[in-house]
Amino acid sequence: MTATLLFGLDVDLAGDDPIYRQLRAAIIEAIESGVLPPGEPLPSSRSLAERLSVSRSTVNLTYQELVAEGFLVAKERVGYAVHPDLDRPQSDDEPRRVDWVNRVVDYGDFLIHLRKPHGHQGQPYPFVVGAPDPELFPTADWTRALRATMADEHLPALIHDHTDADDPLFVEQLCREVLPARGIEATPDEILVTMGTQNGLRLAAASLVHPGDRVAVENPGYPDAAHIFIRAGAELVPCPVDNQGVLLDAADDISLAILTPGHQYPTNVTLSVARRRQLLARADIDDLIIIEDDHNSELRHLGQPVASLKSLDRSGRVVHLGSFSEYFGPGLRLGYVVAEPALIAKMRDIRRYDLRHPPGLITRTMALFIERGDHARALRRFRNAIRERWEIAVAAVPEHLEWAMAFPAGGASLWLPGPYELDATALIDEAAELGVFIETAASCFLTDPVPNHIVRLGVSGLPAQSIEPGIERLARAAKRQMRSHK
Amino acid sequence: MTATLLFGLDVDLAGDDPIYRQLRAAIIEAIESGVLPPGEPLPSSRSLAERLSVSRSTVNLTYQELVAEGFLVAKERVGYAVHPDLDRPQSDDEPRRVDWVNRVVDYGDFLIHLRKPHGHQGQPYPFVVGAPDPELFPTADWTRALRATMADEHLPALIHDHTDADDPLFVEQLCREVLPARGIEATPDEILVTMGTQNGLRLAAASLVHPGDRVAVENPGYPDAAHIFIRAGAELVPCPVDNQGVLLDAADDISLAILTPGHQYPTNVTLSVARRRQLLARADIDDLIIIEDDHNSELRHLGQPVASLKSLDRSGRVVHLGSFSEYFGPGLRLGYVVAEPALIAKMRDIRRYDLRHPPGLITRTMALFIERGDHARALRRFRNAIRERWEIAVAAVPEHLEWAMAFPAGGASLWLPGPYELDATALIDEAAELGVFIETAASCFLTDPVPNHIVRLGVSGLPAQSIEPGIERLARAAKRQMRSHK
Repeated sequence: MTATLLFGLDVDLAGDDPIYRQLRAAIIEAIESGVLPPGEPLPSSRSLAERLSVSRSTVNLTYQELVAEGFLVAKERVGYAVHPDLDRPQSDDEPRRVDWVNRVVDYGDFLIHLRKPHGHQGQPYPFVVGAPDPELFPTADWTRALRATMADEHLPALIHDHTDADDPLFVEQLCREVLPARGIEATPDEILVTMGTQNGLRLAAASLVHPGDRVAVENPGYPDAAHIFIRAGAELVPCPVDNQGVLLDAADDISLAILTPGHQYPTNVTLSVARRRQLLARADIDDLIIIEDDHNSELRHLGQPVASLKSLDRSGRVVHLGSFSEYFGPGLRLGYVVAEPALIAKMRDIRRYDLRHPPGLITRTMALFIERGDHARALRRFRNAIRERWEIAVAAVPEHLEWAMAFPAGGASLWLPGPYELDATALIDEAAELGVFIETAASCFLTDPVPNHIVRLGVSGLPAQSIEPGIERLARAAKRQMRSHK
Repeated sequence: MTATLLFGLDVDLAGDDPIYRQLRAAIIEAIESGVLPPGEPLPSSRSLAERLSVSRSTVNLTYQELVAEGFLVAKERVGYAVHPDLDRPQSDDEPRRVDWVNRVVDYGDFLIHLRKPHGHQGQPYPFVVGAPDPELFPTADWTRALRATMADEHLPALIHDHTDADDPLFVEQLCREVLPARGIEATPDEILVTMGTQNGLRLAAASLVHPGDRVAVENPGYPDAAHIFIRAGAELVPCPVDNQGVLLDAADDISLAILTPGHQYPTNVTLSVARRRQLLARADIDDLIIIEDDHNSELRHLGQPVASLKSLDRSGRVVHLGSFSEYFGPGLRLGYVVAEPALIAKMRDIRRYDLRHPPGLITRTMALFIERGDHARALRRFRNAIRERWEIAVAAVPEHLEWAMAFPAGGASLWLPGPYELDATALIDEAAELGVFIETAASCFLTDPVPNHIVRLGVSGLPAQSIEPGIERLARAAKRQMRSHK
């Protein structure tokens, strides 16, 4: 078959594609180029089939599909014609742009400006809070777990939907190996798998906040938690933090409290046993629900990790949020909630509409990682490495900086209130010139005036031998900053 | 050192643990058992150190830590005592339970009851919609990509935070390899990575729905999309679907439309070219925003895949949602949004508080999978396999079931309206007895009366040779069901 003149176009039906597809493409081209204008009748299938030496059913199939796609209309007894409403693809009118700024929903809350120094990677002294150290990542064990996960027996867990029930192997490993270390005994119906603690906070807020509910939060505290609950309609009640943890005494009429009892974010203070007991007694009296963000609880460097608040909870009013981000870094996005079954069911329902469920690849790999003892080993190694860095930092701070140092028993960062004349925001830039990357504490405060003399020093993101030289440079930068403003 | 009687308890300080930890444990035990009641003074550090033959600083360190934890209080000049507010850990009072049913937020929408037949795995004829077939999973290629991902150079992408910017390699591969196949040219600031289409719908709803906004949805349509927009405060406007796709003509005063133009969910009809053009023209006039859920668009079995609606969008008012769930199954949870930069920024902000970001492990592995050509190959193989199954099903239905069959040009399921006397809900159980698992279409309808004579037949979850025997059995079950109700 050679090229044929069809609707004024040169059509070659000799390609490898089925004839009906080539014919379809030719007709669409004729319509889009304007050769066949809207309303124009097409030749009958009989005459076109003869002209092209193809079967009549091929032409009919093509016409029918073009009707279904809206290029053609079928007119009874008359045959086919180009759709009368079909304009050319590009109109010459100016398109009407969307005014996105006024179109999107305004949540009315302030923006978080963390001033996380970007570009700290590859710098000599990155004291960035929460920055993971690739050197501490359990690459070999995790690679082995990934390989085990790709065995045929695990494939269904990777590809199937887990909307109504989480990966059973992962939940089993949580109950058996992970939660007991936090003093928690739980059954599978008390567990929901999340995309990390942040996701657990979102699901708790969407499940528990009725508009106008008063919610106690720590001040200073985790700014993302504050935003999540504001967006859910809560009225925040900021509560002060001292060396025994948060004080809720002045928080009246609250229905929820969002707390970090293990190591308070950002000060790392552990909520004292006396306060834990007072809190739980009050919770029963006031019908208060407590969200326990178990932030960095494993990173206790003096004494043993304190058991979780959930482990003391006899009324089922503590909602425990855990994650694997401590040693894995924030990139993994895997966590869990432990709470009463009725609340877990509600959170699962909300999770369904948010994202269905966390990826099966990650839950199954972590299940095998835990089962092989890799998780316990990775956590131990990570804790030891962080403890070494933390001890060096704790010794170096009084040596080089004559600042007050809150001295909690653990964590992966130090909370350093400098002299009141320190401008910590200006210090960020001053220190960066010496290769030292720090954060201020300003974004953690919810009430005015926001202090600007406090530095947060993360110790997880740089090797042990860099810590003292880094702190020595920070001290130089701080002196320079304060001198320049006298 | 041998066992010593301390506070009436037999204490052995001979273990491997540091002395201060053993001493700490002994004091806590004495407090918790009631041997040391609240308010009780402790021996001075000097006298205790002498009694235990340990250094005085060890005793002081222990006392100070116990103060920080709230077990003890330090009284000036007097020494240490048990915290006066410290009650025994277990009170005998009955704990006050939480009334969760009345405590959690009621979203006021009806529940989705999909009647997805559980336990269909391992059954001979699982015609379950959206069920992935492990046989079609690209195990070898994906395993290779996972291994490549664990190379040192990719580790930072796995463990670091991606809240403010998605994995650049994945975004690059989307722009270069994936979107052009859908007719879309996009820059990185027009892309947000999601946890799949469901997550994209949630982020679009949270960004764009103001309470009371009228939102057009397809009827029948995707029930989860309806719920997501109801929960965001939308008033739904259900729009009918015919053989050219959805008809929005009767939907007045709408500000948003949620559509599946490629293959309509659940009928698989492709939105005709004429309707696409009308829709975009109207969108400009009414300042309408269109959410394009690109559901199953690659699975076109007759003709070529139709280009996306986004590819025709000159005003930036189409928000395109894609995913990798087609061949990967729903378990992977990876998708993307393509939209104007201002909207992408808003959605990224909401994503931050929901879950921070999708896991780096998955975005980086998929980036390498695409880069190696594995994605294109997997999609082609999957499409061919589904086409074969679909063609068998399309031929078998008229042979065994004398039902009307909507005949769209693609998809991974058939939409089969049976005779009006069919009770499709009863048919589920009747068919299950013959090993055949089906779904009804009832959950896809938003308006009363909900038809109960339509069956959905997924073809992705069972091998080609099972399809005709399964349909033959389904026909038998249907005859039996209709006979039993006469």
